[in-house]
Amino acid sequence: MKKNIMVAQSGGPTAAINASLAGVIRESLNSDAVDRIYGAVHGISGVLDERFIELSEPAGQDADFLTRLIHTPAMYLGSCRFKMPKPEEDRQIYDRIFGILEKMNIGAFFYIGGNDSMDTITKLAMAAEARNSGIRFAGVPKTIDNDLVLTDHTPGYGSAAKYIASSMLEVAHDTYIYDLPCVTIVEIMGRDSGWLTAAAALARNEYNITPQLIYLPEVPFHRSQFLEDVQKELKRSKNVVVAVSEGIRDEHGTYISAKEAVADKFGHMQLSGVGKVLENLVKRELKTKVRSIELSILQRCAGHVTSAQDLKESCELGEYAVRKALEGETGFMSTVERTSDQPYRYEIRHSSLQDIANKAKCVPREWINDAGNDVTEDMIRYIRPLILGETGIEWRDGLPVYLPVAHLNHPGE
Amino acid sequence: MKKNIMVAQSGGPTAAINASLAGVIRESLNSDAVDRIYGAVHGISGVLDERFIELSEPAGQDADFLTRLIHTPAMYLGSCRFKMPKPEEDRQIYDRIFGILEKMNIGAFFYIGGNDSMDTITKLAMAAEARNSGIRFAGVPKTIDNDLVLTDHTPGYGSAAKYIASSMLEVAHDTYIYDLPCVTIVEIMGRDSGWLTAAAALARNEYNITPQLIYLPEVPFHRSQFLEDVQKELKRSKNVVVAVSEGIRDEHGTYISAKEAVADKFGHMQLSGVGKVLENLVKRELKTKVRSIELSILQRCAGHVTSAQDLKESCELGEYAVRKALEGETGFMSTVERTSDQPYRYEIRHSSLQDIANKAKCVPREWINDAGNDVTEDMIRYIRPLILGETGIEWRDGLPVYLPVAHLNHPGE
Repeated sequence: MKKNIMVAQSGGPTAAINASLAGVIRESLNSDAVDRIYGAVHGISGVLDERFIELSEPAGQDADFLTRLIHTPAMYLGSCRFKMPKPEEDRQIYDRIFGILEKMNIGAFFYIGGNDSMDTITKLAMAAEARNSGIRFAGVPKTIDNDLVLTDHTPGYGSAAKYIASSMLEVAHDTYIYDLPCVTIVEIMGRDSGWLTAAAALARNEYNITPQLIYLPEVPFHRSQFLEDVQKELKRSKNVVVAVSEGIRDEHGTYISAKEAVADKFGHMQLSGVGKVLENLVKRELKTKVRSIELSILQRCAGHVTSAQDLKESCELGEYAVRKALEGETGFMSTVERTSDQPYRYEIRHSSLQDIANKAKCVPREWINDAGNDVTEDMIRYIRPLILGETGIEWRDGLPVYLPVAHLNHPGE
Repeated sequence: MKKNIMVAQSGGPTAAINASLAGVIRESLNSDAVDRIYGAVHGISGVLDERFIELSEPAGQDADFLTRLIHTPAMYLGSCRFKMPKPEEDRQIYDRIFGILEKMNIGAFFYIGGNDSMDTITKLAMAAEARNSGIRFAGVPKTIDNDLVLTDHTPGYGSAAKYIASSMLEVAHDTYIYDLPCVTIVEIMGRDSGWLTAAAALARNEYNITPQLIYLPEVPFHRSQFLEDVQKELKRSKNVVVAVSEGIRDEHGTYISAKEAVADKFGHMQLSGVGKVLENLVKRELKTKVRSIELSILQRCAGHVTSAQDLKESCELGEYAVRKALEGETGFMSTVERTSDQPYRYEIRHSSLQDIANKAKCVPREWINDAGNDVTEDMIRYIRPLILGETGIEWRDGLPVYLPVAHLNHPGE
C-alpha cells in the first residue's frame, strides 16, 4: 500500500532551505511508493495544530512551481521555534503527533532545519523506535551558520557566504573612493561560530586587500590588540576594513556587544551591535574617520544572490533523504562529504542523528592565523567552492519572482 | 586643432556613476574633435594635485573595459568632498585650475556628481566666462538621493530603488515565516528627501502587503501617531514592516535619530540610527517583538543589483554632455525628461547649471498620503519604470568582476 510523506521546515531562514524542500518533493513525486506529499505549516507546531497543505498538486500541475520554490528565500512552509520535550517529560505530545501522522498514513517525515530541528527529529525517531512505529524520521540540514557536525558544510551557508563576500567587495569599492584615512567595520552574523565572517576574506582579489582584519568568536577578542591592529593597518593603507562576527567575546567569555550596553534617556538598557561598539572605540581612541555596517538579515534571505552549488546540493540532500527513508532508513540526517578541494568533488551520504543533534562545529583554531585577526589559506580553500555559480532567478517588473509563503493565501489574516 | 577633454567624479558613490563616465569616454572616442581623454583622480582635488590618468588607452585597447566600467559600482576615478570657494574669495585656485587645464589643452571639462558637484562646475563655468576662456564646463547628474531639480530623476536612483525594493521583498519573506506578531523597522538612506524610502512600496505585490507603513522626511514625524499606526497594523497582520527614512524629523525639525542620542559608559554621546530609536520605542511602548535593519551603504554600491534602465540612461547622459559641449554649449547639466509613464519614454536634454546648483527636489506632498504614513499610487507609478531591467554582470570564482578604482595600481600604498 502506498504511503504519504510529510515535510516541514524549522529554525531561521536561509536562501537555500526551499531548494531542499523542492528536493524532497521532486524525489517523492518520482517514487511509486509515495502517494501524497503533505507540508506542515510552521514546523512541528503545524503538525500539532494540524495545519497542512498538499504539495503534490502544485508541484505536479505547475511546471514552474519547483523552479520558483528552489529560488525562493526563507521558508515556503513557514517556521517555528518549538523545543520538543523529552518523551519522559511529556508523553501526550508524542501521542498526539504519532496519532496525527498515523491517521494521515504518513510513512516518512522529513524535517529541514538546523541544530534545534535536528534535536526535534532525533527525539521523534527515538520515540518511533520505542513505540515500534514504522514511520521513518529524517533530517535535512539547513543553516547559514554552518555549525552542524558530520557534514562538510550546511545548505544555506554557501549562498550566505557568497552574499557576504560580494557585499564586502562592493563595500571595498565604496571605501576606496576617498583619499582620506577611514576605518569601516562590517558586522556579520555568527553568534558562536565564525564561518560566515570568514567568508569576508573571499572578497580579496588582485586589487582589493580588504578586509585586512577578520575577528571570529573562536578566539578571545582584546580591545587593545584590536586598536593596535587597526593602527598598524592604517599605516599601510588609507582604507581599513574590518570584518567582525557579532559573537566575539573577551577573554572572560563576555560578548563585546553586551559589554557596551548603553542606557537611553529613559534609563532603559540598549544593546549595541558589536559593529557600533567597535566604531565608537575606534572613534574615541584613534580619532580617525570610522563607520560601521551591519549586513543584517539580508545575508540569510537575499534570494537574488545565491550560490548555484549551494542550491544544487540543497536539492540533492532533500532527494537523498527521501530515497534513504523509502529504503527503510530512519533517524538519520543527509550529509555532504567533500572528496576533493580542487576540483571540488563531493558525495551525498548520511549519518545518525544521535551523533549530530546538540553538537556544534566551530572554526578550527588552525584555520585562524596566530594573531587571531585573520583566517588562513586553508579556510579560504574550504569556502571557495561553496560560493561558485550563479542562479539566474526570474525577474518581473524589475523585482525577483518568488513563491509566496504557503500560509499567505489570505493576506492580512 | 584637436582638443583634449577631462572628466572627474565627485560626491557619494552610486552603482551607476561609472556608466556616465563610460558614456563620456565612449562619445569622446567617437569624436574626431577629441584627442586625449584625461580622468582627474579624486575630483577637483585631483585637478589641483595634477593627478591624472589617461582614459583613451584602456578604453581603446581593451574591448571589455567600457562594459566592465559600466557595471563597476562607486567611482572609478575616486571622489572628493571639496567645496570650491567663490572666485572673489580665492582667485588663486581658479588661476591654478585654468592654468592646468590650458597647459593640458583641455577643450571641455565634465564633472559627474550631485548637488555639491554641480555647485563646483557652475562656479567653474562662470569663471570661464569671466576670463573669456574657451573651455566648456558641463555637469552630468548623479545621486541616489534623486534630489536634483530640472531632471525627472537622477542616475543611480533607479539602481538604488531596485536594490531597496528587492531587499524589502526579501525581508518580507524573512518576516512572514513565523506565526508570531513581529514588527520590523527598515532604515533607508535619505537625509532630506524620501525618494529612496518611497521605493520600498514597490516590494508590495499580489501576496506581500509589506511595508505597511512608510515615513519620509517631508512630513513631520509624531511618535504617538507612529505607535498608533503600528498598533493598528498589528491588528490586521502579524507581520508589520515599517520603511523609514534616516532623515525623519519631528514637528520642530529635530531629527528623530538625534533626539535619542544616548551616552555610552564613558559618557560619550552616541547617535543611534533612527531604526534603532524606533525599535526601542516599539519595544518599550508596545511590548511586542521588534527588530530593526539598516540597509546601509549597500543600497548605493550594490553593483550586482542594478537597473538596466538606470545604467542605460546614465551612459546616455554622459554621451549627451560630450556632444553638447563639442557643439559649443557650456554651463549646463544633461537631464532626463520623461515624456510618458506607460509605456515609459524619455528624452535626454539639458538645463542651465545656474538653475540647478544648490537647489533640492523633495517628494511632493501630494505623493504622500494624507496620514503621512504611506506613498500614493502616483509615487509608485513614477518609480516603477526606473527599476526595470536587469544587468547581467560578469562573475568569476563566484564573485562579481569589477574594475579596480583607478588609483589602486599599487595596493597598500
